[in-house]
Amino acid sequence: MIVVVAGGEVDPEALRRAVSGARWILAADGGAAHLRAIGVLPHRVIGDLDSMDPETLAWLEVHGVPIERHPVDKDATDLELALDHARTLGTTIRVFGAWGSRLDQTLASLLLLAHPRWAGCDIRFVGEGREAFVIREEDWIEGEPGDRVSLIPLIGDTEGVTLEGLFYPLTEGTLPFAATLGVSNRLIAPRARVRVRRGLLLVIHERGEG
Amino acid sequence: MIVVVAGGEVDPEALRRAVSGARWILAADGGAAHLRAIGVLPHRVIGDLDSMDPETLAWLEVHGVPIERHPVDKDATDLELALDHARTLGTTIRVFGAWGSRLDQTLASLLLLAHPRWAGCDIRFVGEGREAFVIREEDWIEGEPGDRVSLIPLIGDTEGVTLEGLFYPLTEGTLPFAATLGVSNRLIAPRARVRVRRGLLLVIHERGEG
Repeated sequence: MIVVVAGGEVDPEALRRAVSGARWILAADGGAAHLRAIGVLPHRVIGDLDSMDPETLAWLEVHGVPIERHPVDKDATDLELALDHARTLGTTIRVFGAWGSRLDQTLASLLLLAHPRWAGCDIRFVGEGREAFVIREEDWIEGEPGDRVSLIPLIGDTEGVTLEGLFYPLTEGTLPFAATLGVSNRLIAPRARVRVRRGLLLVIHERGEG
Repeated sequence: MIVVVAGGEVDPEALRRAVSGARWILAADGGAAHLRAIGVLPHRVIGDLDSMDPETLAWLEVHGVPIERHPVDKDATDLELALDHARTLGTTIRVFGAWGSRLDQTLASLLLLAHPRWAGCDIRFVGEGREAFVIREEDWIEGEPGDRVSLIPLIGDTEGVTLEGLFYPLTEGTLPFAATLGVSNRLIAPRARVRVRRGLLLVIHERGEG
């Protein structure tokens, strides 16, 4: 597993658990501060360093952490660059700090998951009791009955959608793009099954939310 | 102008200014509480009332405000229903409280702006020094030099994009979908011009952010 830490909000305990099982730990720019807070060095830092505090930068340098520095006027966010690096290391990627700071970055990061280059990867944004990931063909959502699950089409209408284990089920139905039909579903079993024949769904799973 | 108030975060002073110039004021469910806080009655409340506190409900009933009550298991969020009603009243719509509470609702609300039925409307989500709206063909972004402006494609690649008055200009270029190229541009003039030949761009404009 590869853990990528970005600059948004992070639950330190969840991050600590994740890095303990990670083969690679990458920081997207200011996300390095979250790792410093739990005393765990990243294998690499990627970004333009415009949101890096001086103490964290000094800590990285003292410990000889490689810093892949990009110009401020680069063509992608630090998180996109970090994910591209992560993809060269493996396919199971967990991202902390993807939301909680800037709305524009949060939105762009979630839409980024729709890009076809991630189709072979298992990428999840995690944090604050919430997970977000994309289902392209078929996947399971695992949690507790009552958890809130929203299914949001990202690239046009999502067709041939079958939902099982959710309060509002569906069989070979359509979730239209730019509509809010898939918002606020709920788990009614420990596992829900989602199948999609055409298009893709962003899952936002809020644990413990009814 | 029509003001729609949803349940997310709202700056009371900005809401007060907006409603003073509004012809119609609509509340999407729990958004009515923001209006009660400034002592302004909506013309109508739309929603399933699942996020309405009892005091606000009593206040609405005492004043005879029409409540368009939908079942909890409706097919759209309260905000989508309220926007559909707003569209029957006029084309200039300002939405308060569209973000700041739930990430799934915030994302779905922003994507909703991409639907073609809003093409003839001037809809802006406003609040917390931030505005979000969609540019389909050509529009201006007005603010202060230094304001941060992110331009995010919502339906596929956005082509034939021309940007003037922004730090990173563009002439007949492409902003690809599911990429973060358009994030973190900046105004360098009081007005920036954005033109799009194919596709559409969500603008997220943060006032006072460099």
